[in-house]
Amino acid sequence: MKKKRISDAVIHRLPRYYRHLDDLYNKGVVRISSASLGAKMDITASQIRQDLSCFGEFGQQGYGYNVTELRKEIGRILGIDSSRRLILVGVGNLGHALLQHLDFHAAGFHVDSAFDVSPDLIDTVVGDVIIRSMDELEDYVATCHPDVAVLTVPKREAQSLATRLIELGIRGFWNFTNVELTTDVPGVSFENVHLMDELLTLSYRISHR
Amino acid sequence: MKKKRISDAVIHRLPRYYRHLDDLYNKGVVRISSASLGAKMDITASQIRQDLSCFGEFGQQGYGYNVTELRKEIGRILGIDSSRRLILVGVGNLGHALLQHLDFHAAGFHVDSAFDVSPDLIDTVVGDVIIRSMDELEDYVATCHPDVAVLTVPKREAQSLATRLIELGIRGFWNFTNVELTTDVPGVSFENVHLMDELLTLSYRISHR
Repeated sequence: MKKKRISDAVIHRLPRYYRHLDDLYNKGVVRISSASLGAKMDITASQIRQDLSCFGEFGQQGYGYNVTELRKEIGRILGIDSSRRLILVGVGNLGHALLQHLDFHAAGFHVDSAFDVSPDLIDTVVGDVIIRSMDELEDYVATCHPDVAVLTVPKREAQSLATRLIELGIRGFWNFTNVELTTDVPGVSFENVHLMDELLTLSYRISHR
Repeated sequence: MKKKRISDAVIHRLPRYYRHLDDLYNKGVVRISSASLGAKMDITASQIRQDLSCFGEFGQQGYGYNVTELRKEIGRILGIDSSRRLILVGVGNLGHALLQHLDFHAAGFHVDSAFDVSPDLIDTVVGDVIIRSMDELEDYVATCHPDVAVLTVPKREAQSLATRLIELGIRGFWNFTNVELTTDVPGVSFENVHLMDELLTLSYRISHR
């Protein structure tokens, strides 16, 4: 793979490519032109060619893309084949909803464990995942080295929790707390979920239709 | 406002502009240069100028942007001042989490009501919102004309529910069902939430750091 700086916009489109290709793959579609894929994704064919050129040579003039191959290749670029391990911290309504509804496995993640303070939850199972006490969190992370932590704790706990988990070696955070987390430690990634952004996009669209 | 076709990428950046400007406003910041705003948002100053030029003339050479004015103007473009009315359909864990944790008001929406089939939930209050029976949904929508429906129902019900609500006049859907909804009715907007995309972006970042 060429080593060049990939823009954030391209990185954010990769999961969309993967999702649409996965959909085509599951429908048994064998090949697709950049024009058809673009129409499906509401971007131009030339944008697709430009995006994919960041990662190598894909597709063939006059044939288009082989769906199985491109899906596999984008999956590999995204790290879906790396079987990452993930913990979830904070099993309130949102934590419950994520454990029960999301197909982490399809994204290449195994949910190792979840953690909460509530005695009613500890040692119960939510969506196949055992809930452990927050008291066990540090030992667990130090011993088992999960790759990613999903943060679904209250706002006030977010930064101190992230700081502890970074010290213990976690480098990826899927952050639902609405707090902009920071760290001085290099190589840490925060993916902050801002659900309201999408509602505002919808608000724009119904204003300007 | 100039009437031209605004690209999806620009529309999706508008809520991010608003969020960052709102943050600056709440911190008492009076003005900001496009370079500083760009650094905060991880985009270039020229991208900002280009995006905003879609909507008119903002900012001043050598001064930058007046935070209060630009926040207000982008809020207006997004329709935050239009006091939209919203219903939520399906009060499972995810519906509960949204009702309890999201500040709909800050995005210019009032949550009118929520609907569920569970007798245990009907007539209870979640996050200030009364839960009504699904049997009342059609009458409610026909009478009260909410602008937007948040769909947090099971997958299998998503399309038929959306079709009914469109017939009853709803034109905006914030869709958490993971079903790609479709309609032949013009002027309907679906904003589909694909949470997994963000987890895959994180997966990419920890693979390529």
